[in-house]
Amino acid sequence: MEEILDLVVASRTLAEHGVIDAYGHASIRSPSNPQRFHMPRNVAPELVTEADILELDLDSEPIDAKGAAPYNERFIHGEIYKARPEVMAIVHNHSHAVVPFSCTDHELKPIFHMSAFVGLGIPTWDIRDAQKGTDMLVRTRELGAHLAKKLGAHPAVLMRGHGSTVVAENLPRAVGRAIYLDLNARMQSQAMMLAGPGGRVAYMDESEVAANVAWQNYERAWRLWKTRVLAQLRK
Amino acid sequence: MEEILDLVVASRTLAEHGVIDAYGHASIRSPSNPQRFHMPRNVAPELVTEADILELDLDSEPIDAKGAAPYNERFIHGEIYKARPEVMAIVHNHSHAVVPFSCTDHELKPIFHMSAFVGLGIPTWDIRDAQKGTDMLVRTRELGAHLAKKLGAHPAVLMRGHGSTVVAENLPRAVGRAIYLDLNARMQSQAMMLAGPGGRVAYMDESEVAANVAWQNYERAWRLWKTRVLAQLRK
Amino acid sequence: MEEILDLVVASRTLAEHGVIDAYGHASIRSPSNPQRFHMPRNVAPELVTEADILELDLDSEPIDAKGAAPYNERFIHGEIYKARPEVMAIVHNHSHAVVPFSCTDHELKPIFHMSAFVGLGIPTWDIRDAQKGTDMLVRTRELGAHLAKKLGAHPAVLMRGHGSTVVAENLPRAVGRAIYLDLNARMQSQAMMLAGPGGRVAYMDESEVAANVAWQNYERAWRLWKTRVLAQLRK
Amino acid sequence: MEEILDLVVASRTLAEHGVIDAYGHASIRSPSNPQRFHMPRNVAPELVTEADILELDLDSEPIDAKGAAPYNERFIHGEIYKARPEVMAIVHNHSHAVVPFSCTDHELKPIFHMSAFVGLGIPTWDIRDAQKGTDMLVRTRELGAHLAKKLGAHPAVLMRGHGSTVVAENLPRAVGRAIYLDLNARMQSQAMMLAGPGGRVAYMDESEVAANVAWQNYERAWRLWKTRVLAQLRK
Repeated sequence: MEEILDLVVASRTLAEHGVIDAYGHASIRSPSNPQRFHMPRNVAPELVTEADILELDLDSEPIDAKGAAPYNERFIHGEIYKARPEVMAIVHNHSHAVVPFSCTDHELKPIFHMSAFVGLGIPTWDIRDAQKGTDMLVRTRELGAHLAKKLGAHPAVLMRGHGSTVVAENLPRAVGRAIYLDLNARMQSQAMMLAGPGGRVAYMDESEVAANVAWQNYERAWRLWKTRVLAQLRK
Repeated sequence: MEEILDLVVASRTLAEHGVIDAYGHASIRSPSNPQRFHMPRNVAPELVTEADILELDLDSEPIDAKGAAPYNERFIHGEIYKARPEVMAIVHNHSHAVVPFSCTDHELKPIFHMSAFVGLGIPTWDIRDAQKGTDMLVRTRELGAHLAKKLGAHPAVLMRGHGSTVVAENLPRAVGRAIYLDLNARMQSQAMMLAGPGGRVAYMDESEVAANVAWQNYERAWRLWKTRVLAQLRK
Repeated sequence: MEEILDLVVASRTLAEHGVIDAYGHASIRSPSNPQRFHMPRNVAPELVTEADILELDLDSEPIDAKGAAPYNERFIHGEIYKARPEVMAIVHNHSHAVVPFSCTDHELKPIFHMSAFVGLGIPTWDIRDAQKGTDMLVRTRELGAHLAKKLGAHPAVLMRGHGSTVVAENLPRAVGRAIYLDLNARMQSQAMMLAGPGGRVAYMDESEVAANVAWQNYERAWRLWKTRVLAQLRK
Repeated sequence: MEEILDLVVASRTLAEHGVIDAYGHASIRSPSNPQRFHMPRNVAPELVTEADILELDLDSEPIDAKGAAPYNERFIHGEIYKARPEVMAIVHNHSHAVVPFSCTDHELKPIFHMSAFVGLGIPTWDIRDAQKGTDMLVRTRELGAHLAKKLGAHPAVLMRGHGSTVVAENLPRAVGRAIYLDLNARMQSQAMMLAGPGGRVAYMDESEVAANVAWQNYERAWRLWKTRVLAQLRK
């Protein structure tokens, strides 16, 4: 199935860009059944093959685990698919430049045109607001639902000291957003340091954000990423 | 044609250096007809082959699109070739260290001898001065002409929240300038942070800039880049 | 022996992640004799093969040097194995982001959930407190013992102007901790700069640290790293 | 001749570490004639083979150019070999983290034990003190001699807005120093930013520098670098 292959492409592409390392995961809502989603079993994303992809229900339970362990944090995905019917793809990641924003009072703002979606607002979720003394992982449906609520209608949510979860209406858009979220964070940090405290930084305005988000699906990039991964898989 | 192969070399070299990712593009003015230019069809630069190179007129319309989509932002190239008869090559890119300068009040200055051309002045263009509410892309001849006017006689123009466009009298010089513009931005940021607010940073002076720019065509580097890409293409 | 192969995997993985370059070393306590440990002879970690692994006693003397020179700093390992009976694996490294913390008054704090162990406390050892005028290397049992004392019951100790030494109850945990210590340092630096002097940075709290440290063995990552190194060794 | 092969190893190793790109060069004093030295013809260091190595006299003129162009900046090497009889190897480079130090009033200090030689003092040369309005290149014997005078008895000299030149009693030491000079600059920048204006940064003291410099020849690293380059050359 092309969609399953695309999920392999997404997993390996995210790893290649350093947005995820051995941790983090991408998923897609099932194209044939909106009450189901697909994500890999518990394996490092750069090793994922089509055989590793499991089907889960919206309670994040595997339909047939095939003897394989699912990811602990699958509840992030199931609960967001429940809450956001239009969302077709999700990426949970630990990208390095984003974490510092999740731990300070500076919010991400849209500084780079490829990252215009940042202008739709990126809230920060602190797991402590849902439960004290966790190991920081979203291990239950309750925690997943709490995160999904914080995400609201936004395209992404930062997770304090952990990373982020990014959503979209299709998989290329979710992958592109995860990659360009990290780049926006790096450019914004750099601009803030250049500008100094109180200095001017020019961000995209609302009308620019809206015009860009209307169509930006990272299509040319997706064709490149798919070409690369298919070449890898043939080796 | 050697010039078309060189454009393939340029595209892949820019991608390898991270100056462009799936986005950004290089072009050359046609060596046989100054009213035409060549650039790839809408494909990621690291995948470009000679077969992907289209010929366009100075209104940025393909002479024969061969059924392929051109880049949305081809108007950057056509309008600059119109305005600057001596320009033979153009690189439009999103290099990461440059964007923060385009969003703050700190201008780029020539800190590194390989980037001496920065001393010829690098203005910043804000698309909002031409049109409000765009998606930030240079999608029309009008926007291209507005950008070309801001570029004026300079070797490059920053584009707020977007990247830069770099021009030169030959392709190796345009590619080298795109690569060393990014490096100058990184070194300048670092020097500014070391020096602290109000601290001294020694830049190249005008006479040094002039002496360097007179001859700097990045020839040794170009031979290296071409060697690398030809080896890739043979694989 | 699987444990010896795993030490090869650890050495090469640490080099691949840039946590060690030609310098730095990993060791394991002998699974059959707690009074012995294994570490490579004096060779760059990315070149280590099973044939390079020596067995040493807890005074850090090779049982059979096979004509090969041991590492000068083997005393780091022997003295910690003496002092900490539960420690089964040790990584000594020079990871780049950690050294600046060893030279300033800012201590590492747990900012990233994969680096929760930082919350158990990371003291800094200054070799000058043990001996003046050294070349900075832990070349004697006395220096090793002094370092082990500073380490105390902690999971790692920074070494001023040098790097760090990380310990754990098993090898995957020691390797993972070395890699994520560096990442924590990078994220913490970045967050401190974003927040500015006196600004808020949210770190993991004690209960979160405890819950995470209880189980975090970097198992999925270890499977990835081993897969990669085995593929290298087969080439 | 082993020494010529070693110069190939050095050139490619410096390129691989990003200390030089298409520019920069390494040389050795001739082992058989102290009035001669060897360096590559004008070619990018990562492409250098034994056939590219020229022999030059101490006025930096090729004994037999074999129809090949020498590097413009060969005078850096000849004039230093004249002034410093004990120097057997020289590396001229543009490493990125070093240039910002050459343009500000902050001097490099020894923060990392692998870079102890920094503690012997690294002066900064400004070409404007020798000649105004140059293109920044050391194109004459006079400029080379002026640089050599600034270098004095030190292990390296920064060149304002350009890079540095590093010398040593043998080639592995010169290569290692060039690589670790860059790393020291990165760590020192980071520590200075962590500490803030006026904050404490602990550097190596004089006795530590002396003890380390006495023997540090980067031997283990050299064996690694040579292994890697020989594998490349066999391909």
